[in-house]
Amino acid sequence: MIAKTPKPPYYAVIFTSIKNEEDKNYNSMSKKMLALAQKEQGFLGVESARSEIGITVSYWDNIDAIKKWKNNSEHSIARKQGKSKWYQKFKVRICKVERDYEFEK
Amino acid sequence: MIAKTPKPPYYAVIFTSIKNEEDKNYNSMSKKMLALAQKEQGFLGVESARSEIGITVSYWDNIDAIKKWKNNSEHSIARKQGKSKWYQKFKVRICKVERDYEFEK
Repeated sequence: MIAKTPKPPYYAVIFTSIKNEEDKNYNSMSKKMLALAQKEQGFLGVESARSEIGITVSYWDNIDAIKKWKNNSEHSIARKQGKSKWYQKFKVRICKVERDYEFEK
Repeated sequence: MIAKTPKPPYYAVIFTSIKNEEDKNYNSMSKKMLALAQKEQGFLGVESARSEIGITVSYWDNIDAIKKWKNNSEHSIARKQGKSKWYQKFKVRICKVERDYEFEK
């Protein structure tokens, strides 16, 4: 789904990753983290796709909401597992969305 | 591939899309546009993945480079075809990357 986001400015976290071998716990943790993020104040939406690399973009009302989510204790545990088990490489980019536009048939 | 980008600030264009039925011309046009974008001054890199939705993030040195690419005549023709043929829906978000970090095993 393309995320429904409010009028800019708002924030985006672009998470680009290369995964290790499949791990059966990854998908359940991924779903759990999404459910948790959705409960955070300031969470606006998320978009995700995976081919050779995975790209997940989460949208947030402000930078403090992103920091708060980063410090969420369950999320911190999941991030440690991500580094030790699931990801070979990843990059995180924190961005201010300045402008957006859309097209629909 | 995860794009190698310089130290922030720089810009990102997040292009999220839902495609129509497969069209054989889409892939060749997509490759042609990537080759053209790479020639633009200020182009820093691109990341792309597609599952239910497609996410392509292109990175740029500054906002003027993004505007110049938008006005590129071949790109303008491709964008018209995108609306008439390839995409059911898309959203474009222009962002300033304020911070980034990475992990590699």
